[in-house]
Amino acid sequence: MDTQVIKPYVIGLDLGGTNSVFGIVDSRGEIKATTAIKTQGYDKVDDYVDACVAALQPIIEEVGGLDKIKAMGIGAPNGNYYNGTIEFAPNLAWAHDGVVPLAKMFSERLNDLPVALTNDANAAAVGEMIYGVARGMKNFIVLTLGTGVGSGIVINGQLVYGHDGFAGELGHVIMRRENGRSCGCGRTGCLEAYCSATGVARTAREFLANSDEPSLLRDMKAEDITSLDVSIAAGKGDKLALRVYKFTGDMLGEACADFAAFSSPEAFIFFGGLTKAGDLIMKPIQESYEAHALKIFKGKPKFLISGLDGSSAAVLGASAVGWEI
Amino acid sequence: MDTQVIKPYVIGLDLGGTNSVFGIVDSRGEIKATTAIKTQGYDKVDDYVDACVAALQPIIEEVGGLDKIKAMGIGAPNGNYYNGTIEFAPNLAWAHDGVVPLAKMFSERLNDLPVALTNDANAAAVGEMIYGVARGMKNFIVLTLGTGVGSGIVINGQLVYGHDGFAGELGHVIMRRENGRSCGCGRTGCLEAYCSATGVARTAREFLANSDEPSLLRDMKAEDITSLDVSIAAGKGDKLALRVYKFTGDMLGEACADFAAFSSPEAFIFFGGLTKAGDLIMKPIQESYEAHALKIFKGKPKFLISGLDGSSAAVLGASAVGWEI
Repeated sequence: MDTQVIKPYVIGLDLGGTNSVFGIVDSRGEIKATTAIKTQGYDKVDDYVDACVAALQPIIEEVGGLDKIKAMGIGAPNGNYYNGTIEFAPNLAWAHDGVVPLAKMFSERLNDLPVALTNDANAAAVGEMIYGVARGMKNFIVLTLGTGVGSGIVINGQLVYGHDGFAGELGHVIMRRENGRSCGCGRTGCLEAYCSATGVARTAREFLANSDEPSLLRDMKAEDITSLDVSIAAGKGDKLALRVYKFTGDMLGEACADFAAFSSPEAFIFFGGLTKAGDLIMKPIQESYEAHALKIFKGKPKFLISGLDGSSAAVLGASAVGWEI
Repeated sequence: MDTQVIKPYVIGLDLGGTNSVFGIVDSRGEIKATTAIKTQGYDKVDDYVDACVAALQPIIEEVGGLDKIKAMGIGAPNGNYYNGTIEFAPNLAWAHDGVVPLAKMFSERLNDLPVALTNDANAAAVGEMIYGVARGMKNFIVLTLGTGVGSGIVINGQLVYGHDGFAGELGHVIMRRENGRSCGCGRTGCLEAYCSATGVARTAREFLANSDEPSLLRDMKAEDITSLDVSIAAGKGDKLALRVYKFTGDMLGEACADFAAFSSPEAFIFFGGLTKAGDLIMKPIQESYEAHALKIFKGKPKFLISGLDGSSAAVLGASAVGWEI
């Protein structure tokens, strides 16, 4: 008989610029206990990690103690899987100008629990593979459409980290080499500058400025328009808002045609706020892909929306990284 | 004591549209025996494979018989690794409108020898990993600059075949989305339309037509110019020819910046005729990469020329696929 203690849970930490959300998750993706603290307000990383561990104690007890926990997974901006570090993360006071060994710091405070860390889009990809729509798939690409555009790439059943741990920045392939929009990365024409939530709002403002077409979006100040407003207007049949989705989907489809030439995935999986528009965004993506893909890749990949529950998707993704250790 | 027969060799077959070149190769990449037949002149694939096996017999005997051979690797256009098939290869009379199980056919005629098959660019990548400049590397991309632009991508030490076996068509990512050159694939703006040998000749003709700049290339008919002529002129310091290399290298560097965002490789390795220009092409590639790459990828990858000997590189690449079985 196996005398090893059964460890049925992993801890997931979705480390965002504003909140740090924890979940204790079983192997089927059920969240057994959850808690959260503010990410901001800690100048020193030691104080931040101490506060995290203090918040974790009661929920660890709730599931039967640390003995029941197999590992911890962290999804964090600028997370480097190879080193377990966060590197030069602009939105984190204690990591914006250095390299922080966060995985090791958690492990030391949690009785040498194995801790793995990666960026949030990679965590989403592992989450889809373990609990979501990519179960059983060996080759797929997750594109996260949020404030930015992130990606997690799985090839031969493994997440692609590349030589340095930073592979999978598909939000920063260049889609417009001439007169491209400025991007937060300092360059121009990146996919993210068009197809993130902020990119969608920019497209709407551009369309409003370049035409006299009537639109519900003209009822508000141009600078206040968000992707949510575009989504609401599109839901009411607003033609200009629908054109914004068509434009966004067209570009994502073109980008996916190039990505297929790279890794020929079984599926492209879309994650994040923009996917709430459903067919308004997914149909243009798929049609544009079919129009632009190299002949041998036409009709092959699936185009899917994330199978992870929206509100807890990021925590589930982070926890999934723990199962992979 | 191990009673297994030692099998120190593999057979490599570089299957081209014109010639089929065979080599028997040891584990250090030394070619022990070689032969070749014409690829053309066989309407039926059975006749072609019979002729191959007849040509192979004497060189197999030369190295001590089939017992000394571990496996066979084939590099072929439109080769599918997963099935060992050649699929719809336009330049092969017996495979241009169907799926041919070539690996199985060779295996049956060679006493059930294990036979693997992949496309020529993938074979080049495996060749670099086993005998060439990528020894010890786990993440790299080979770009073959010949009549077309091919690619072989290695991630986590494994060649990327994708869900269908056809991944790694980086010659067909789109570099010019507006007014792009027509490509043999039926689309426009592909990397291959600019950076293949034929693309380089097209660039030279374009530059000659669009300026009055004096050039050695004006001494010949525009339609007769090949990439070799451009290379000879550049070697003599011809400014227009040098601009052609700069243009080609600039675009390859931009493309590599996008590829880094995908798999962040340790090295980009260039293979094929165009690399004979040495620094004339490699310097613009690297400078353009550094100018265009996302900040976190700047200064990281190496830019290398293939380490496989030119005349036998394709056979070595094919043979390397045999060692990987």
